[in-house]
Amino acid sequence: MDLKRMGNQTVVFANPPVILASHSVVGPKEGQGPLRKTFSKVWKDQLHGEKSWEVAETKMLQEAMQGAIDQVGFPKEQIDFMLAGDLLNQIISASFAARQMALPFIGLYGACSTMALSMAVGSMLLDGGFARNVLVGVSSHHDTAERQYRFPTEQGTQRAMSAQWTVTGAGSLLIGKNGTGPRITSATIGRVVDYAESDVNNMGAAMAPGVADTILNHLNDLQRKPEDYDLIVSGDLGAVGLGLAAELLKKSGLDMGTKFTDCGVMIFDASQDVHAGGSGCGCSSVVFAGDIMQRIKIGELKRVLLVGSGALHSPTSSLQGESIPGIGHAVVIEA
Amino acid sequence: MDLKRMGNQTVVFANPPVILASHSVVGPKEGQGPLRKTFSKVWKDQLHGEKSWEVAETKMLQEAMQGAIDQVGFPKEQIDFMLAGDLLNQIISASFAARQMALPFIGLYGACSTMALSMAVGSMLLDGGFARNVLVGVSSHHDTAERQYRFPTEQGTQRAMSAQWTVTGAGSLLIGKNGTGPRITSATIGRVVDYAESDVNNMGAAMAPGVADTILNHLNDLQRKPEDYDLIVSGDLGAVGLGLAAELLKKSGLDMGTKFTDCGVMIFDASQDVHAGGSGCGCSSVVFAGDIMQRIKIGELKRVLLVGSGALHSPTSSLQGESIPGIGHAVVIEA
Repeated sequence: MDLKRMGNQTVVFANPPVILASHSVVGPKEGQGPLRKTFSKVWKDQLHGEKSWEVAETKMLQEAMQGAIDQVGFPKEQIDFMLAGDLLNQIISASFAARQMALPFIGLYGACSTMALSMAVGSMLLDGGFARNVLVGVSSHHDTAERQYRFPTEQGTQRAMSAQWTVTGAGSLLIGKNGTGPRITSATIGRVVDYAESDVNNMGAAMAPGVADTILNHLNDLQRKPEDYDLIVSGDLGAVGLGLAAELLKKSGLDMGTKFTDCGVMIFDASQDVHAGGSGCGCSSVVFAGDIMQRIKIGELKRVLLVGSGALHSPTSSLQGESIPGIGHAVVIEA
Repeated sequence: MDLKRMGNQTVVFANPPVILASHSVVGPKEGQGPLRKTFSKVWKDQLHGEKSWEVAETKMLQEAMQGAIDQVGFPKEQIDFMLAGDLLNQIISASFAARQMALPFIGLYGACSTMALSMAVGSMLLDGGFARNVLVGVSSHHDTAERQYRFPTEQGTQRAMSAQWTVTGAGSLLIGKNGTGPRITSATIGRVVDYAESDVNNMGAAMAPGVADTILNHLNDLQRKPEDYDLIVSGDLGAVGLGLAAELLKKSGLDMGTKFTDCGVMIFDASQDVHAGGSGCGCSSVVFAGDIMQRIKIGELKRVLLVGSGALHSPTSSLQGESIPGIGHAVVIEA
């Protein structure tokens, strides 16, 4: 069998996996943003009746995954793998959701890039012949992430203007070997790139080099130009990181034009006081499962490049003086 | 193309991937244990000249991966993916090692089951036609893990007799599509199983049900019996968990006989004061990369079932009163 690869980093699917269903659940703030009508469900508050934010995040992820399952006409037993991850230590939201789903579980960690990473790995398992269907689910929760990564949530610490707002949201996709729907046609797994940014209030700057590196390699591997895509969307660089990524790409001779945007820029508007935009792996998962999937389905977007961006640090590594390694994972989705 | 699956949970490789090289690096305590002669390198102390245990763990993982690469006669550019994980929050040991390796990086989290999970996913990517070679690397470090999961290391808190000793070790495998060496012939991805054990000093009890579930499903899927294996080895249940898993399997009508053992039981002896045995994802990674690989190569073992066992909790989930979800991932390695 020939290798399903092109160039250095890109895999190309022989039988592109099909996105059979998508579901997104978000918190109240996301439900007031510009994409509010594209989400499957908006929670009225951050706890949703649970005893802790962590339990609420697990429930949100379960709800998103169950929502995707409910849209297809086959039993859960036809799903061969669940691929999931989140931002919490030991990815407990995904692990506890996996306990409830009782499906063979592959835990992934790519920080905010986890959605694109899960879609890429899931697609390889499908196209490789190892599964009939896979369930992808990725979440973040503003309050669980803030208190783990930064300050006690109740403290109300003033945020830097370059800081992003961790999205409360869970997105899920049910991807199949057969069926009709948008297809995942290729994927580019990123390398870690670190430009020595160490400011944890400026994740966008830390992740921009990794995203730029993956976009360059992706286009080079497939011999494509930015114009070959209707949308190139990172998730989630925010406004600061998006500008920096565009600048880095320009220095490499690539003008990204107006079709280059970011899930963290799309999900909130200026009036919502989120500074540089949204972040957290829930952000790209709900923007993709919501808005982008809708626009692909109605024919507005024919070919999309989703580039998940991850800041692969921890509070411990930052306190020990390490810089923040960034990574970008890309998947191509076609109508 | 037909599905490469048998039964409910098991994938069977059409062209079984080949383990081209293995390398293991351990700390001083592991270097004094019964398997001391099987490790590639033993460090003299836990810090190895680094400024923190966390930096030392990253260096240990890099050293193990470089050691595997150095054994093959091709350049690093022929390695298409690095699959790695560890126990630390946000898998920083793997992420920082990935920064140095500069290979397309897939971050995985399966707690102590991460080695078997990485081998399984890596093998699917190879057999699926997405890579020529993949590099697998998994580590844990006693002092980084203890202070993150339990108590300040310097405090010297007395340990329960059911507690296991987190291994300081990093194991790496270079697995290829072509070449000669032991082959990975099938894999069974586990489901989360939770029998409501919530004692974080008894991980073996928390993980035993997940391991038993995966062994039962694996044997059932392939219509095999325990006698079809020269060794069935979990990693890492310790003495308490191994006994419980054997008991659970016996209740399901399966007598595991004397070929069922555990990496956590193998790595230390009674004189080393480790109570229930070793644990941490470095344990099964170095026992497999060291002792088990050697015994396969000299022909002592023809067919091995490695069942990684993971306790998918976090200190936060335990403090919030959650029980500990367990999982088992299995891979079959044949001479």
